[in-house]
Amino acid sequence: MFNFEDYAKSAFTVDNIIFGFDQGELKILLIKRGEPPYTNQWALPGNFVYPNEDLDAAAERVLGELTGLKDVYLEQVRTFGEVNRHPLGRVITVAYYSLVKIKGYNLKGTSPLSQKAKWVSIENATNLAFDHDQIFEACFRRLKRRVRTRPLGFELLPRKFTLTELQQLYEAILQPEKKIDKRNFRKKILSMKILVDLNEAQEGVAHRPAKLYKFDKKKYEKFVAEGFNFEI
Amino acid sequence: MFNFEDYAKSAFTVDNIIFGFDQGELKILLIKRGEPPYTNQWALPGNFVYPNEDLDAAAERVLGELTGLKDVYLEQVRTFGEVNRHPLGRVITVAYYSLVKIKGYNLKGTSPLSQKAKWVSIENATNLAFDHDQIFEACFRRLKRRVRTRPLGFELLPRKFTLTELQQLYEAILQPEKKIDKRNFRKKILSMKILVDLNEAQEGVAHRPAKLYKFDKKKYEKFVAEGFNFEI
Repeated sequence: MFNFEDYAKSAFTVDNIIFGFDQGELKILLIKRGEPPYTNQWALPGNFVYPNEDLDAAAERVLGELTGLKDVYLEQVRTFGEVNRHPLGRVITVAYYSLVKIKGYNLKGTSPLSQKAKWVSIENATNLAFDHDQIFEACFRRLKRRVRTRPLGFELLPRKFTLTELQQLYEAILQPEKKIDKRNFRKKILSMKILVDLNEAQEGVAHRPAKLYKFDKKKYEKFVAEGFNFEI
Repeated sequence: MFNFEDYAKSAFTVDNIIFGFDQGELKILLIKRGEPPYTNQWALPGNFVYPNEDLDAAAERVLGELTGLKDVYLEQVRTFGEVNRHPLGRVITVAYYSLVKIKGYNLKGTSPLSQKAKWVSIENATNLAFDHDQIFEACFRRLKRRVRTRPLGFELLPRKFTLTELQQLYEAILQPEKKIDKRNFRKKILSMKILVDLNEAQEGVAHRPAKLYKFDKKKYEKFVAEGFNFEI
């Protein structure tokens, strides 16, 4: 006989993978846990969903409480449900991800579960609590795949950027698999007509100032919706 | 004070969206429910995950029990967790999808939850139990998006097929948004060199027999892995 109570014994959480880009480095936002399990260990900003709370709402709330980040567009990536992934019992976790500009966020959470939040280079985002290494890897793989079929950068770069900065972003995501040829990259990205030449140059740099570009928002969004093939 | 028991009150299910293609029509596999809730109503083949069972394993088991389909490659699509989506309590569901050849499966489930399983044209897959209309729509949208960046057909068509059959498959997925021009479609698909001309013609057809093709498996898999842009 089916008895609902036999099944209604699981908890579920949300975990957020927030990518940012700064000084040529791809980073993710981690918290140092302030409560058990895994106290003092670095982890993805995640926590339990209230029994009467929608998943997407929970992802937003948890991210805000643990890191101070608000109004971030979170996209569901995948659900992780291995039987023994959580020490307290059966806990399914739904992973969300987002790409944001690092500048402009004040990392001040309100929850004691987070001692502090910090942007960490993806190379150093290892030995995380729970199965968070595995969750991070899955989300990073998704980002690497996405680079090939959707434009990228609008969410991660400052409004005005140089072609070198854009190439550094692609390299940070595609490494170590791919070294990008500068000439090919420029030819390809300019032929897509996704960039607007601002007729401005960088200021306050030691080297010869480079031209500044911004994205053509309409074209960018068209490519996001329809997909494309960016082979570099 | 955090108390795990306050959160460990949810159940979770898996729901499978199995697409097939037959006689020019795109279909999905539904079950007529044999048990409450929603007895006698059509639904996606889904059921509860055992507390000690992995998600992927549960999706496979449930599909087999309800429909008889075995050894199907299931891919996780998205998790649906609206607070009131299930009448018995808080139930999160993880949706899996697959593309299969309709022929060759004997629709014989073993679970009383399924009175019967049946391939249903996607136009008629409406008024499903729970929030299954919404889950189906989300998976169908994913399939429509995927057509633009990955090759399609290997999983759905017979081993030998005509260009007309391949075009019908694309039309069945992209309709009603898109009418496909025959000449453009053929030019585009042949230029990708993804098809092998078998130097055979159809047999036993009333009209002029068309040429038969099969997929070049290696090229097909390369495109699946790397993505491409199929604008038609």
